[in-house]
Amino acid sequence: MTTLQLIAFDADDTLWPNQPHFDYAEEQLYALLTHYADADTLGRRFYEVWRQNMHLFGYGAKSFMLSMIETVIQLTNGRVTGNEIQQILDYGKRLLDFPIELLPHVEEVLAELKQRGVPLMLLTKGDLFDQESKLARSGLGDYFDHVEIVSEKNEATYRRLLMRYQVRPEDFVMIGNSLKSDVLPVAKLGARAVHVPYHATWIHEEVPADQLVGITFHRADSLKEALAYLP
Amino acid sequence: MTTLQLIAFDADDTLWPNQPHFDYAEEQLYALLTHYADADTLGRRFYEVWRQNMHLFGYGAKSFMLSMIETVIQLTNGRVTGNEIQQILDYGKRLLDFPIELLPHVEEVLAELKQRGVPLMLLTKGDLFDQESKLARSGLGDYFDHVEIVSEKNEATYRRLLMRYQVRPEDFVMIGNSLKSDVLPVAKLGARAVHVPYHATWIHEEVPADQLVGITFHRADSLKEALAYLP
Repeated sequence: MTTLQLIAFDADDTLWPNQPHFDYAEEQLYALLTHYADADTLGRRFYEVWRQNMHLFGYGAKSFMLSMIETVIQLTNGRVTGNEIQQILDYGKRLLDFPIELLPHVEEVLAELKQRGVPLMLLTKGDLFDQESKLARSGLGDYFDHVEIVSEKNEATYRRLLMRYQVRPEDFVMIGNSLKSDVLPVAKLGARAVHVPYHATWIHEEVPADQLVGITFHRADSLKEALAYLP
Repeated sequence: MTTLQLIAFDADDTLWPNQPHFDYAEEQLYALLTHYADADTLGRRFYEVWRQNMHLFGYGAKSFMLSMIETVIQLTNGRVTGNEIQQILDYGKRLLDFPIELLPHVEEVLAELKQRGVPLMLLTKGDLFDQESKLARSGLGDYFDHVEIVSEKNEATYRRLLMRYQVRPEDFVMIGNSLKSDVLPVAKLGARAVHVPYHATWIHEEVPADQLVGITFHRADSLKEALAYLP
């Protein structure tokens, strides 16, 4: 019996750096707004507002801008100036078109897998428009047989995708930097997950250690090392 | 030889009103900002800014808010107040969670097609997170075998989807209110398009008459009438 195999890659902070660009934008904006509050206060309030707006705005740079604007309006009781808000828009726009630099070994690993003949998928969560644009800017489009951009990477999402592509869990491998999105839900379905940590982990993607008890997955220090766990 | 058939429905202004909510938000905001400029000026400037930002922000309510904020900052040379910008955010948030009211005959038509046994797809462009939320709020999720949310509905998009679902153009029908997105690219591929016009058409979706010369499609005054053109 022939079975279909499928290897899926996360994109942000797995194939190219993303979080550092957001960290940089936050840092610059907090420096700009320091006459209203210090960076710690701004950061804490921003994360609160961002979380409250999450069910409406979702992930990504547009969500970042809108919640940052709202944070500063609240913190200043409306005294923030139009020009300061324009700066938030300007930094946010850069988050939507920064040049994509590939992480080490990315092209080498994708080319090797392409040779092995297993179908490859790019599987990323976030803003549809933004993620499509990043893939186009990355120049990696031709390596992927499938591209799936989803609003959330949880067990239901992975189950739906395996159904759609008629792949059994044991024939599926997910590679990514997020324990929460790329590893936990995949391992729970009985599929294989390879965790390739990235130095900048977004607070929203952190997982308490007790949630990892009894979960089986691989850890690789680089994409090149991850090759050993792939069909 | 068995062939797969597929019927796809557009969502906004085909299954439920959407544009009227945006029109209402614009109207209210222009009334609020009337001490800076009249509604015509605001509307014209907004559309210019929106178009310039389109390649970064895409479609949808978040894009609407960000471009509206930028428009007012520009028009007022930064004098717009934080509280006025908060009003833009508040109207914009309502665009992300208004109750979905179905257009006439929607449930009746979907139930009838479900009985006929042809697979149904919801095929909409826009913001992934927002469109998923609207579908959930509509209560129509169970009628659809497939949901595809895309960043643009052009010939390339339709070609890719027909490939993915292994459907021949002659076995595909698209139903929607937009000549630009639901009719023209579909008819050009040799598939069937049923245009169900809606009273509020977004300026960005308008098509000059000469582009329709030689294009064959059906026009129905309601979804119920559209049934006559469906397998």
